[in-house]
Amino acid sequence: MGVVVALDEEKRRASGVAALVELCAGDMREVNRLILDRVGSDVALIPEVANHLISSGGKRLRPMLTLAAARMCGYGGEGHVRLAAGVEFMHTATLLHDDVVDGSELRRGRLAARMLWGNSASVLVGDFLLGQAFKMMVEVGSLEALGILSDAAAVIAEGEVRQLASAKNMATTEDEYLYVVHAKTASLFAAAAEVGPVLAARDRGERAAFRSYGANLGTAFQLVDDVLDYDGDAADLGKEIGDDFREGKITLPVVLSYRRGSDEDRAFWRRVMEQNDRRDGDLDHAIALLRRHNALADTIARARHFGAVARDALAPFPDSEHKAALLSVVDFCIERAH
Amino acid sequence: MGVVVALDEEKRRASGVAALVELCAGDMREVNRLILDRVGSDVALIPEVANHLISSGGKRLRPMLTLAAARMCGYGGEGHVRLAAGVEFMHTATLLHDDVVDGSELRRGRLAARMLWGNSASVLVGDFLLGQAFKMMVEVGSLEALGILSDAAAVIAEGEVRQLASAKNMATTEDEYLYVVHAKTASLFAAAAEVGPVLAARDRGERAAFRSYGANLGTAFQLVDDVLDYDGDAADLGKEIGDDFREGKITLPVVLSYRRGSDEDRAFWRRVMEQNDRRDGDLDHAIALLRRHNALADTIARARHFGAVARDALAPFPDSEHKAALLSVVDFCIERAH
Repeated sequence: MGVVVALDEEKRRASGVAALVELCAGDMREVNRLILDRVGSDVALIPEVANHLISSGGKRLRPMLTLAAARMCGYGGEGHVRLAAGVEFMHTATLLHDDVVDGSELRRGRLAARMLWGNSASVLVGDFLLGQAFKMMVEVGSLEALGILSDAAAVIAEGEVRQLASAKNMATTEDEYLYVVHAKTASLFAAAAEVGPVLAARDRGERAAFRSYGANLGTAFQLVDDVLDYDGDAADLGKEIGDDFREGKITLPVVLSYRRGSDEDRAFWRRVMEQNDRRDGDLDHAIALLRRHNALADTIARARHFGAVARDALAPFPDSEHKAALLSVVDFCIERAH
Repeated sequence: MGVVVALDEEKRRASGVAALVELCAGDMREVNRLILDRVGSDVALIPEVANHLISSGGKRLRPMLTLAAARMCGYGGEGHVRLAAGVEFMHTATLLHDDVVDGSELRRGRLAARMLWGNSASVLVGDFLLGQAFKMMVEVGSLEALGILSDAAAVIAEGEVRQLASAKNMATTEDEYLYVVHAKTASLFAAAAEVGPVLAARDRGERAAFRSYGANLGTAFQLVDDVLDYDGDAADLGKEIGDDFREGKITLPVVLSYRRGSDEDRAFWRRVMEQNDRRDGDLDHAIALLRRHNALADTIARARHFGAVARDALAPFPDSEHKAALLSVVDFCIERAH
């Protein structure tokens, strides 16, 4: 009986993003073709490095947001394909640069590009992808869409610099962490969704609605990601347990556990996070503290809040397949934590 | 039996803010003395207009935040009294100016100052109070506290101008509305709380914690206020039902009901809010729509989220009377909606 429930559960989860995948399948074929095309270069190192990451099986959620938002708003042209590919390139470039900055060894369960080709290649191929992203976006000819996406690129970079410049600090408040989430994750989700109605020349209110949907979905997505990093049951979803911990990343579950803990608990978090002194058994202890302080469950509760805001953002639009698919993605992002 | 429950309920609610009132009683006497002193002027119109509002029985929650935060952080001086009085003057000035901008006829159940002395007097007495507020804050001699409070003053004013410049728009998203709440309400709560640890020379992390507490408490407070404006059961708490509605204010319950409603519902909201065409029976219809779309209950759910963030912001501080009182205020702000 447990197995039956588990299978049903699995199916329900899959259906959360399956509807979007199915609706975008045709457009995504074009996006993927464009990605393969634009990653090509006479400099063989570029496609090698880029394809290592591109072929490693990300969900491509962000470009699908652009595609679905444009179609939902009645866009009949082809510009959304280039914008979607640009969004995915922007995301890939960020990952390449992030891994260098964080000194990460793994990405999506494989060796990070920097471990195979070095930091310099990762930085420069990231720059190449950003350049290609802007080229494709310029080709679409929408100054408004270009403005939204270049704003996002600036916000992402500014957020990274801010994080780098501020010493690692366990006293980080939830608000301060959410500010980082907004810069690093939510801003690209927001831009990816907003350019859909922009291409379709929809009014200010509809653009704001998609922007709000994307930003809140992105925030919920990141918070659940933070939980999955400590949640053993979710290991089968392709995420390594303890990556954030090993990199000393202060995420919301850690912020909550630190704030709610005893002096002894806080000394532990400061040692492993601020002083980067991590020993055998520390990850297990960290997980035990997160559970004791209800930090994982409450991070999901916070994610639910943002998910609810994302849903209300799209509420005014008439029912459609695309709207239903975009709403299911909200559930998918949150339910994958169970 | 029902009566017994109601009384218990009343007592519990009162205790939510009673602990803070009691802890701050001594300091608040000084604050009130200072307020009476600084509102004095040879120009008789100034104390007349100012006292009309000052004596009308606001909760003085904001100055109590400053007092309690300073004491909780071990501050032993007297500067917090002047800052608290300054915070209350800033708040009073905002109310005077708001009533002019909104054309409000009532404030706290009495005629607005502008109805008795005219718009010009309200504007100028507001300016006088702002000036006095800054004078008192300067006297304290903390450039940091002064910076925090003057930032808040600028954010409040910028938020008002933004609201004035943007046409009234039912397509406002929840995010956009929360931005307004942050500027108009949360920023002063945040500053009022943050200057406490600043006076006590506490570190950056503790200042950020109080700032986060204040901002999230202020947001929760405003969202519940928005609900009370449509919630008949709460009329005994000194708030008139339907004030926001009569002034065509777009608040979160209205945003949610509009987004979740039918085309017909949306036409109603646009007529009463955007076109300011309000007829007999419209308020009852509005309340029915808010209930039908669960907009009041979900606004309170959103407020609970911010309340939870406010509580976690103060979680790291050792237990104390002041901490307990500040946490009770969070509950009070949310529970008064029931």
